[in-house]
Amino acid sequence: MNNYNFRVPTDIRFGKGQISCLADEIGKYGRRVLLTYGGGSIKRTGVYDSVLKVLEGFEIYELSGIEPNPKVTSVREGVRICKEKGIDVILAVGGGSCIDASKHIACAAFYDGDPWDLVLDNSLVKKALPIFTVLTICATGSEMNPGAVISNEETREKLEINHPLLYPTLSVCDPTYLYTLPKSQTAAGTADIISHIFEQYFQPNDGAYLTDRLSEAALKTCFKYGPIALEEPENYEARSNLMWTSTIALNHLLTFGKGGAWSVHPIEHVLSAFYGITHGVGLAILTPAWMRYVLNKDTEKRFAMYARNVWGIMDKNEHYEALKGIEMTEEFFKKMGLPGTLSEVGIDDSQFSEMAKEAVRTSGLQSRSYVKLETEDVEKILRSCL
Amino acid sequence: MNNYNFRVPTDIRFGKGQISCLADEIGKYGRRVLLTYGGGSIKRTGVYDSVLKVLEGFEIYELSGIEPNPKVTSVREGVRICKEKGIDVILAVGGGSCIDASKHIACAAFYDGDPWDLVLDNSLVKKALPIFTVLTICATGSEMNPGAVISNEETREKLEINHPLLYPTLSVCDPTYLYTLPKSQTAAGTADIISHIFEQYFQPNDGAYLTDRLSEAALKTCFKYGPIALEEPENYEARSNLMWTSTIALNHLLTFGKGGAWSVHPIEHVLSAFYGITHGVGLAILTPAWMRYVLNKDTEKRFAMYARNVWGIMDKNEHYEALKGIEMTEEFFKKMGLPGTLSEVGIDDSQFSEMAKEAVRTSGLQSRSYVKLETEDVEKILRSCL
Repeated sequence: MNNYNFRVPTDIRFGKGQISCLADEIGKYGRRVLLTYGGGSIKRTGVYDSVLKVLEGFEIYELSGIEPNPKVTSVREGVRICKEKGIDVILAVGGGSCIDASKHIACAAFYDGDPWDLVLDNSLVKKALPIFTVLTICATGSEMNPGAVISNEETREKLEINHPLLYPTLSVCDPTYLYTLPKSQTAAGTADIISHIFEQYFQPNDGAYLTDRLSEAALKTCFKYGPIALEEPENYEARSNLMWTSTIALNHLLTFGKGGAWSVHPIEHVLSAFYGITHGVGLAILTPAWMRYVLNKDTEKRFAMYARNVWGIMDKNEHYEALKGIEMTEEFFKKMGLPGTLSEVGIDDSQFSEMAKEAVRTSGLQSRSYVKLETEDVEKILRSCL
Repeated sequence: MNNYNFRVPTDIRFGKGQISCLADEIGKYGRRVLLTYGGGSIKRTGVYDSVLKVLEGFEIYELSGIEPNPKVTSVREGVRICKEKGIDVILAVGGGSCIDASKHIACAAFYDGDPWDLVLDNSLVKKALPIFTVLTICATGSEMNPGAVISNEETREKLEINHPLLYPTLSVCDPTYLYTLPKSQTAAGTADIISHIFEQYFQPNDGAYLTDRLSEAALKTCFKYGPIALEEPENYEARSNLMWTSTIALNHLLTFGKGGAWSVHPIEHVLSAFYGITHGVGLAILTPAWMRYVLNKDTEKRFAMYARNVWGIMDKNEHYEALKGIEMTEEFFKKMGLPGTLSEVGIDDSQFSEMAKEAVRTSGLQSRSYVKLETEDVEKILRSCL
């Protein structure tokens, strides 16, 4: 087991009606709140009204229209408001994109230059506003971690900012807010959760037995409740289990004592930077293709372990078990109604070469991923998704 | 899944050599340190010297001789030193007893009356010194939670103090410090970890599927590595997996979305308050007896699930699976060299009636435990352990 530092200070308020804590908790930090959200679905679902009601008496400023794959242009606008209005607290109401943009705003509010500088050099982060979140999509785990992924359209980059000051102070996770999610978002969110677990599970073991078993527990939860949430949007048991799984899938618990760079996310980040497709959709297409590509004599054992412990597949032949596990994964994504090929989402091979270069350039694929991947490997994986 | 508030701010520094962080991290809070420890084994093993070396230049005061089942008398002495010397930080080097006493000292240092008052009424805790720990026994999970169990010999009480201010600020968990543990302590510590998981697992489900799967992952880790640690004391993989399991077994992760009062611990607390036996030994004796006593048509399903998911037992008959799971648990404790009966540790039935009354009086056994237990039930369980 590798040495590991683990400190996750976010206060999680999980369950029905937990939003009522916000006035007291935000009030500890001040009265001027920047409320951030996306395209306005929170107005249709009533969450927006609940927030305003709970925060009656606070000075609320709004930054709306934060896009999926949030852009640095939104961050710049948020920073302007923070500086102009002397904001005390940022309250992000939404999913990962909204929370990620808010994290970037929170630290850029104390920085004099352009916010993008902080993405290129995280060590420039010196201070941040307290961040509160009300989660309305479960997928990214951003509600309990210090990372944010921000896109820059000018440079066609999609990069991470990560700093201990960016842990949300408090996150309200009310599973009933997921009841109104469209099927497509439930499916894509579940694919994102699963991919986060895979990225940490498919790494050399180093004796981190407990961490692997915890990851399998989280995977089983996704495979059990994903289809239920799709069919019965108001099933509390399904929504609550998926919601908590999404949080622990990326709060460092499942990488404790392990390490290594991620494999599928860097490729997908380039996909969505080039084509703007939904992150979880890209992951669902790429993941089985990546699995088949990296399956070899060395990795077979781990893929077979996955198949046995998560899917209950039992065979004398490890290679068969491994393949069967990959097949089950692919079947699952299909069952969730997710596209299985790039062609289905209108992506052809015209930019594969450039995308592969970019994926390798901006990640640890070549040096520290489970199976090291060069540009030509990434291109082959993309091609196998056509 | 029940509503749940989850905030665990302790900074865990896990792995070989992590002690080197202490000077920088303690230095943030001051220079005057109260070093607390137990009977002096840390001097034999060299951990004491490592601590003094790392903290060269700090003003160190010592409170040694903290007993297993730590007494309020030790706490009083610690508080005296804190007040007299203007202590800035408490550094507990040891296991749960040492950390528990240190937590109590940390808050009693700011209280004018007798420290026992805070145990009887936790709401009197208003402020606490920062607590750092260097873990040398893994068992109680006290290194990452806000609870402490303190004994009062005069009143023959063993009660908990629990307050958010009592989370350790930072805990150094170096598995190599466990290499020198006597077999008996490795065995008793593992029994304690397992019991913590059971106390949370054997509760009504309420749809907390993920939590149950995580608990099973933790149990499997104990059952796999307990015997290895016993046979190969310097097996890093075994020691590190047990050490991290002990921490997450009691940092609220495994009770997320669940609830209810504990069953076996309250009975054991009375056992060790009356007879001073090792906590883990008492738990190993009581647990299988408790399991057999509460096994019925209602609880059978959960005991069978435990048998299947943790021990891989498969049978058409759920009752058989359940019994087999209990048997495997009992066998495991035997394999760890732990006593199986109260007679083996020199305890007879002379005080069972008084002990049973006390266990029920000081716990939620009657009202909120998995299967509610009255005084006569507890007495029967004790009698079945003779």
